[in-house]
Amino acid sequence: MTPQPALPRPGPPGVPGGPGRLDPGPLDAADPLASFRDRFAVPDPDLVYLDGNSLGRAPRSTLARVAGVAGDEWAGELVRAWDHWLDLPLSAGDVLAAGVLGAAPGTVAVTDSTTVNLYRVASAALDDLPGRGAVVAARDDFPTDRYVLEGLATRRGLRVRWLDGDPVLGPSPADVAAAVNDDTALVLLSLVNYRTAAIADLEGVEAVARRAGAHVLWDLSHAAGAIPVDLAARDVGLAVGCTYKYLNGGPGSPAFLYVAPRLQGRMRPPVDGWFAQADQFDMRPVFRRRDGIAGWLVGTPPVLSMAGVLEGAALVAEAGIEAIRAKSVALTEFTIALLDAELAPLGCTLASPRKAERRGGHVAIRHPDAKALTAALVARGVVPDYREPDVVRFGLSPLTTSFADVRRGVDALRELLLVGR
Amino acid sequence: MTPQPALPRPGPPGVPGGPGRLDPGPLDAADPLASFRDRFAVPDPDLVYLDGNSLGRAPRSTLARVAGVAGDEWAGELVRAWDHWLDLPLSAGDVLAAGVLGAAPGTVAVTDSTTVNLYRVASAALDDLPGRGAVVAARDDFPTDRYVLEGLATRRGLRVRWLDGDPVLGPSPADVAAAVNDDTALVLLSLVNYRTAAIADLEGVEAVARRAGAHVLWDLSHAAGAIPVDLAARDVGLAVGCTYKYLNGGPGSPAFLYVAPRLQGRMRPPVDGWFAQADQFDMRPVFRRRDGIAGWLVGTPPVLSMAGVLEGAALVAEAGIEAIRAKSVALTEFTIALLDAELAPLGCTLASPRKAERRGGHVAIRHPDAKALTAALVARGVVPDYREPDVVRFGLSPLTTSFADVRRGVDALRELLLVGR
Repeated sequence: MTPQPALPRPGPPGVPGGPGRLDPGPLDAADPLASFRDRFAVPDPDLVYLDGNSLGRAPRSTLARVAGVAGDEWAGELVRAWDHWLDLPLSAGDVLAAGVLGAAPGTVAVTDSTTVNLYRVASAALDDLPGRGAVVAARDDFPTDRYVLEGLATRRGLRVRWLDGDPVLGPSPADVAAAVNDDTALVLLSLVNYRTAAIADLEGVEAVARRAGAHVLWDLSHAAGAIPVDLAARDVGLAVGCTYKYLNGGPGSPAFLYVAPRLQGRMRPPVDGWFAQADQFDMRPVFRRRDGIAGWLVGTPPVLSMAGVLEGAALVAEAGIEAIRAKSVALTEFTIALLDAELAPLGCTLASPRKAERRGGHVAIRHPDAKALTAALVARGVVPDYREPDVVRFGLSPLTTSFADVRRGVDALRELLLVGR
Repeated sequence: MTPQPALPRPGPPGVPGGPGRLDPGPLDAADPLASFRDRFAVPDPDLVYLDGNSLGRAPRSTLARVAGVAGDEWAGELVRAWDHWLDLPLSAGDVLAAGVLGAAPGTVAVTDSTTVNLYRVASAALDDLPGRGAVVAARDDFPTDRYVLEGLATRRGLRVRWLDGDPVLGPSPADVAAAVNDDTALVLLSLVNYRTAAIADLEGVEAVARRAGAHVLWDLSHAAGAIPVDLAARDVGLAVGCTYKYLNGGPGSPAFLYVAPRLQGRMRPPVDGWFAQADQFDMRPVFRRRDGIAGWLVGTPPVLSMAGVLEGAALVAEAGIEAIRAKSVALTEFTIALLDAELAPLGCTLASPRKAERRGGHVAIRHPDAKALTAALVARGVVPDYREPDVVRFGLSPLTTSFADVRRGVDALRELLLVGR
């Protein structure tokens, strides 16, 4: 393990509560974000939830807001509520931009699903460089990213160059450089890998792509709300991401898309929907796209599901992304310390980067029986996630996950492994 | 007006409550659907809501279900709830198919917005007939339909042939026949026009298109839940529509799309998202589309907004689309009787079809001051809608609108017109 000053050194493996135990108590006691857990509904306090990177917990404020949007605004204001609902995709986008993504106002819209946004932004990027014959993506990226890009490439007769790279660290800028040339239109990458949590070298990849004149589209789904992203300061061009993971927006809450100001006037989204129309309710015969990020809207947004995005993003902004990242690093370091001390001797290995600066908010624990182990954990009230082919994924959501949760999760996994021996 | 046995003959114009009054009392007393209004939240009983064809009222069962989905399923079951949420787009589709659209099981999916679905279905239809150079649409169709189709056509180098037709009745099959030939790939039409409520001659248009080998895509947004559609019996190929109007699904609730079995194996949706992937959570390297309508899913559905679709569609199914249509006809006939007797002398004209069988669930009242009149009506607690350039639209939603609502709406409009004289 990477020694960390904040962590006690592991002793020999011992039974839970035994003398060799890595103690979460002092870590939780010193956690400046500990009180945020009370801002969330936790109907079953005994549940150890380690899948907040798949579906984040429900903020109490969101439950209240959803009830208000449904019971007061919809039922009471009826169609008149569109006077303020119309602004939601852009106002929620500005909250995300300022508090989560480090982006300028007017560069982020909350709309549609991540998949639809991937399709639209990738399509526009390809349309913007029509003479180029290839796209680049990572072979182990999240499925919908790969499917969407390969589908677009096939329909347009473009080649896909698949990046392999290190199985844990993912593609390096050198790997990208070997795949990108002046025939490349687009590089699609997740900033944080959904399986390993590897953080891509954003600056390195952007530099390689810029030299080749190619666009880069970042999927921020596992990054937004977990690590600082700083889109403006790093001059990122294009990004999409979901809001129901670390942003706790609720199941299937609308996704976001980001287009840098330098590209907004240049790119043309492929779907001309009425929410992108200037003077929308004049219902004119000719489509005239709204300026800026508003031109990327499409159809009527799902207002109930949108309510959670605003609340979830506001909570992240209130806690502060730097404080969230600090706790996230401590949580993953603690998990890895426990893994090294107590799970490695039982056949588990780490499938996430060891260096904290290369690792996002979850820890991938590899074991040949990962699928059965995950099911057994869920059956006993510990909920991680399983990812093909052999990973138990511990998702650690800094606003709601305690160090004690991690301890209990590892204890449960260890007990299962001991029984299985 | 068209005489209707159920309606009293209009007397001379009189003040509200005066002797010449067309009385809504007996009509409401005889309304077999009157009790359905109690199934909806009506926090302000004095509000006269005549815009249920823009945003339907909130069913009480939906408010309860949304609270349960948020507070119990999301907060309590957390990611484990996906075991049943995953099925929602197809199960809600089957409820719509059986209870609202007259379609076979496995032909309807609830997903995305109407605009995104228009784009996807139209794209697939154009891909299916790649040698053809033209598309056909109505010049006065709903804006997003026109924008999406024209955008697709422009990007593909296709011509758009715009249908004009009668300003109230819309394009006839003869109008369509004059525009369609063996170079036509797709005809896009709304079954019920959003401004005039004209019902298109579906069989006639389908027959014309079939002879030319062109696809027809129907937008059912103003039809679903208001008139019988009978997609299976009429052998319709392609349709989309929204769920927040007569289906009362809630603001921006996900839309639906329908693809006939005969086209499901033949057409290829343009976006390859992970919800359309066979064995979705195996996360395999190659996209393999699910069979049937499931192959048209895309990304993660907005679960909170989806809840309202199931409840709203179930209410329509419970009431029965034939009973809904019967009341809808009576409501629009009553509105037109009042218009003829009391508003026509004050400068209003009917901009909807006179024949009930050609008219959907709303009535378009034309007046040069329509915009100011609508604003003044809203200010006094009567909420119709304004549509460019000169229409006050009375939307009459059979599950929640009473004949007394219509009477009060007309009274308010009449008073405004009298003051303005």
